[in-house]
Amino acid sequence: MTVRFGLLGAGRIGKVHARAISGNKGAQLTAVADAVADAASAIAEAQGCAVRTIEEIEAAADIDAVVICTPTDTHADLIERFSRAGKAIFCEKPIDLDYDRVKACLRVVEETDATFMVGFNRRFDPHFSAVRAAINEGRIGDVEMVQIVSRDPGPPPAQYIGSSGGILRDMTIHDFDMARFLLGEEPDTVFATASVLVDPEIGKLGDHDSASVVLTTPSGKHCTISNSRRATYGYDQRIEVHGSKGAISAENQRPVSIEIATNTGYTKPPLHDFFMTRYTEAYAAEMAAFVAAISEGKPASPSGQDGLRALALADAAYLSIEQGRAVKVSEVLG
Amino acid sequence: MTVRFGLLGAGRIGKVHARAISGNKGAQLTAVADAVADAASAIAEAQGCAVRTIEEIEAAADIDAVVICTPTDTHADLIERFSRAGKAIFCEKPIDLDYDRVKACLRVVEETDATFMVGFNRRFDPHFSAVRAAINEGRIGDVEMVQIVSRDPGPPPAQYIGSSGGILRDMTIHDFDMARFLLGEEPDTVFATASVLVDPEIGKLGDHDSASVVLTTPSGKHCTISNSRRATYGYDQRIEVHGSKGAISAENQRPVSIEIATNTGYTKPPLHDFFMTRYTEAYAAEMAAFVAAISEGKPASPSGQDGLRALALADAAYLSIEQGRAVKVSEVLG
Amino acid sequence: MTVRFGLLGAGRIGKVHARAISGNKGAQLTAVADAVADAASAIAEAQGCAVRTIEEIEAAADIDAVVICTPTDTHADLIERFSRAGKAIFCEKPIDLDYDRVKACLRVVEETDATFMVGFNRRFDPHFSAVRAAINEGRIGDVEMVQIVSRDPGPPPAQYIGSSGGILRDMTIHDFDMARFLLGEEPDTVFATASVLVDPEIGKLGDHDSASVVLTTPSGKHCTISNSRRATYGYDQRIEVHGSKGAISAENQRPVSIEIATNTGYTKPPLHDFFMTRYTEAYAAEMAAFVAAISEGKPASPSGQDGLRALALADAAYLSIEQGRAVKVSEVLG
Amino acid sequence: MTVRFGLLGAGRIGKVHARAISGNKGAQLTAVADAVADAASAIAEAQGCAVRTIEEIEAAADIDAVVICTPTDTHADLIERFSRAGKAIFCEKPIDLDYDRVKACLRVVEETDATFMVGFNRRFDPHFSAVRAAINEGRIGDVEMVQIVSRDPGPPPAQYIGSSGGILRDMTIHDFDMARFLLGEEPDTVFATASVLVDPEIGKLGDHDSASVVLTTPSGKHCTISNSRRATYGYDQRIEVHGSKGAISAENQRPVSIEIATNTGYTKPPLHDFFMTRYTEAYAAEMAAFVAAISEGKPASPSGQDGLRALALADAAYLSIEQGRAVKVSEVLG
Repeated sequence: MTVRFGLLGAGRIGKVHARAISGNKGAQLTAVADAVADAASAIAEAQGCAVRTIEEIEAAADIDAVVICTPTDTHADLIERFSRAGKAIFCEKPIDLDYDRVKACLRVVEETDATFMVGFNRRFDPHFSAVRAAINEGRIGDVEMVQIVSRDPGPPPAQYIGSSGGILRDMTIHDFDMARFLLGEEPDTVFATASVLVDPEIGKLGDHDSASVVLTTPSGKHCTISNSRRATYGYDQRIEVHGSKGAISAENQRPVSIEIATNTGYTKPPLHDFFMTRYTEAYAAEMAAFVAAISEGKPASPSGQDGLRALALADAAYLSIEQGRAVKVSEVLG
Repeated sequence: MTVRFGLLGAGRIGKVHARAISGNKGAQLTAVADAVADAASAIAEAQGCAVRTIEEIEAAADIDAVVICTPTDTHADLIERFSRAGKAIFCEKPIDLDYDRVKACLRVVEETDATFMVGFNRRFDPHFSAVRAAINEGRIGDVEMVQIVSRDPGPPPAQYIGSSGGILRDMTIHDFDMARFLLGEEPDTVFATASVLVDPEIGKLGDHDSASVVLTTPSGKHCTISNSRRATYGYDQRIEVHGSKGAISAENQRPVSIEIATNTGYTKPPLHDFFMTRYTEAYAAEMAAFVAAISEGKPASPSGQDGLRALALADAAYLSIEQGRAVKVSEVLG
Repeated sequence: MTVRFGLLGAGRIGKVHARAISGNKGAQLTAVADAVADAASAIAEAQGCAVRTIEEIEAAADIDAVVICTPTDTHADLIERFSRAGKAIFCEKPIDLDYDRVKACLRVVEETDATFMVGFNRRFDPHFSAVRAAINEGRIGDVEMVQIVSRDPGPPPAQYIGSSGGILRDMTIHDFDMARFLLGEEPDTVFATASVLVDPEIGKLGDHDSASVVLTTPSGKHCTISNSRRATYGYDQRIEVHGSKGAISAENQRPVSIEIATNTGYTKPPLHDFFMTRYTEAYAAEMAAFVAAISEGKPASPSGQDGLRALALADAAYLSIEQGRAVKVSEVLG
Repeated sequence: MTVRFGLLGAGRIGKVHARAISGNKGAQLTAVADAVADAASAIAEAQGCAVRTIEEIEAAADIDAVVICTPTDTHADLIERFSRAGKAIFCEKPIDLDYDRVKACLRVVEETDATFMVGFNRRFDPHFSAVRAAINEGRIGDVEMVQIVSRDPGPPPAQYIGSSGGILRDMTIHDFDMARFLLGEEPDTVFATASVLVDPEIGKLGDHDSASVVLTTPSGKHCTISNSRRATYGYDQRIEVHGSKGAISAENQRPVSIEIATNTGYTKPPLHDFFMTRYTEAYAAEMAAFVAAISEGKPASPSGQDGLRALALADAAYLSIEQGRAVKVSEVLG
């Protein structure tokens, strides 16, 4: 069985998924839709698929699944439409910036029994998933403390900032998911603090560019997250888990791992420049997992509930920033 | 000029300082005092010095300086006595567990114009001080975010826990000082959370064994601290500073840096077993700085105020844990 | 323009090249031939191409280029046939085990003006090519000494040993090419020593499993090569170049770069298991270079002369082993 | 028992040993002798010992042992004199540049039953000795191939070159000893090649500055040595042993192990600047081993025979360079 895909949204992340679909033997990219005709054409040409409208894809008998890469404020509507159209749905994070909207949307997913997966790509990174596997094998005993460092090489454009939902819903949301993935226990308390250190324009837009978060779980496990919209040395993506019998970490990745020694020292090249290059394998594995779920008729993971829970952590984090206190996640759940 | 030392307290850390004094060309260990006669004799024999009482050292014309390594609850009294006796004083951290007691004690130090230094040894670690130096040279631009990981290989004995003032005053206090050392700006807000994950006995004694802390400064810099009383892999001591132009880190140290490759992977030996071996060079450099301050008639650093400020951070952290909120340091200042 | 490929030989390395062709946008795998029908069918099915005979491929108008992955003793004949058939030719190393046969074969290539490339895949490894690029940029000044360590995870099957031409023509030949690639000057003297340490059966077949080689150039540069048919820790592939202004190295690669710390130390997983996984990117880049040479009508590199010269170094090395002396390469040139 | 030392020679390496003696609890530096009065005085003052003539030290009842750090051409005579004077003798390598002179000298050592140790400090480096220990524990199975890289940060002064015996007797001799230490089997064949790449002046003096050596043992083990008198990045000292069950390596050491990440990459500081800083711990452990041998009345190791055998390897290496062939060590044994 080959899963036939429609791609909604032909921007930066759309291209990433188009390549992941093309590289997957069980998948085929049938059509792409984008409000910007040139963007759609570029992918259509590169991957050898058709350009269609969203409506056409919705109605198409030769499309089994869609990948939603459109602007965030269209996600929930599209998820509902395509759920009702009987398609399997992969949606980029976040599902929506509003918790209640996400809940309502997931209700439709549930009612229509659609196969649904949310795009938390990092779970599929071979290094990060090896960390999870080693924990499962008991290599470090019981998980006690998790450290996540996640820094973008630079801030996004101002126009993106405006509709991003803020750094915690846009960027940290990946780390919230990673924290849940690694802790093995649902965090129930969030403390967050954020500031503007990189670019004052970001502050004027009401957003932050630097954030620190502490999550705790009922049994007393901790997770700290450190975020910045700046990292001159590349896309900084590290996780570390400390347990009762040891610790495990996944270090940064670089495209070329040479080392040059001179009288000024030993130098290795900068890291990957951003997610498109850093997480190439993760995007491929993510798509493979989605295709497998469809093919085998099993639920996809990470699920809509995973998307919802990460958003709740972001909401709790914003309440924490506002009130300067640790916030129970239950306070923000609808 | 040779600075002649009296050592007060012949326990574990007393031995460390005795060796540091003996290895310093400008210093001489003249006498050692300890309530436990055998402990004092052991150091006296090993280092070739006399055993005397505290009173004798206080009155001795051939003693210029003392190193206070006695139990914490005796520190403030001894500092006052030896300040009045005209001796230079090096005191192990903490000065006292009570903020007001420290303030009062430091007033005596000031009135008597005593040379006074507090034992925050990590500032003198060659790797950590190289981090500070690189920041000073502008290598990473403006400091934005600091990460400190500090884990002991195992918990202290129960009897020690009882009089330690709690993990934040006993262990994290080093990290609070390191945070101040690295941030280059006084943290004004503290959030902390702590739990018992390692040993329930520690919880029964009212203490914690795992802690996470976030400090922030007026300009918006952050520092996260991660502490545990357990690390199967050795004494885990790492710092990392992220700035506007780059980042700098000091990795863990191990006594032997070989690597064995087999069919199960590539293995390096565990880290140093604890502070006595990890910070050998730091203790020597610390003592050298103290001796230099005395010899040159200059103020010693880190000062009593550094000790006081670190304690204030610990107090604020405990208030934060109690009330589940970010605490202004000004709230706990007397 | 799309280059249409016929694949000759559907064994282990054939599969590697089939994947590289399929993953290349400018290339298309049209047909595969193999004496073992099942092997050909497997690739045909996996990559969606036809099974044909060598004769059919030779005569096919819809085939522009062939990739020769058949047993070594068929290489030279096939190169000649396909040169005359007007196809571009990529041939796995070695061209032949006999120096004069290679020379004769390359004469046909020259006369027919065929585009010809020999499969020294390591030149295309992103890490190794970055080493070469850094040398070209003058980062380490003039090259002085090169170290190459190359160890297979385990010995090949006995039947392969028999027709391999010996470890120096089969395995070290890659290192001879890498030495030439990195030295930037033609080595003119070879010293080699080899022994049987891994498996006495290899010795009974007249081959060795462990070898050390020293190459020197007219200006006095050195290269040492260390080879073994055994490495319990994975496929060990390292290069290091020391120059007048510094040194540069490319370290080993592993599929998963996590680190687990326990009371026995810090452990990273083993290396890639062999060339198929270690050099995935190199094989893709190699094929891309071949396709580009064909498309642009330019000579391909590494050339037949590169293959010839590496074989001459192997021949000289065997003479060195036989006579226990440094051998001038000119002694073995026809 | 305290071993009382006379130090012969107050140059660079003399100072190193003076510090090692002073830092050893079982040793005491009683006197120092040097033709250059100022050099002797400097050490005498720094370590609190007397300046005496060699004759006075020879006759002194309060001297148990001597450390010979004088120019190489005086070593053998001094060893004989002090053997006859009943002193224990530690002599810097090489014992002499002439094989027969060494043999004769060691005969006197034997006849007088003097405790004698030769200064191959690297055996005592904690990292290198941990490599040896791991081999002894069977961690890598049977040793098969050893790689040694040893590069000085820069060439010695011309006047030193003239009396050094050549790079192979002066510098590589340490690597010859390390090869014997690690192989666990006596090498019986040597191939060497050497050239002048660093400084033409060295060539004019008849010496080389770059050398590659291959040693083999009767059972077929190999060792390659790579030497240069230039390393812009510091004192490059690496060993690596490959065995039937795995491999083990000791990497380079640096005084400060921080890492700075910027837009140009990740940079660690250069290595130690030279042997005085790189091998501080080794020199201390070496002296401790000598003191222990004297105190316990046991033979010291490495012995005179170790010194003799390393010189034989150097002699064989020079014969190899001269004749361009692998030389049996037995050819140069007297």
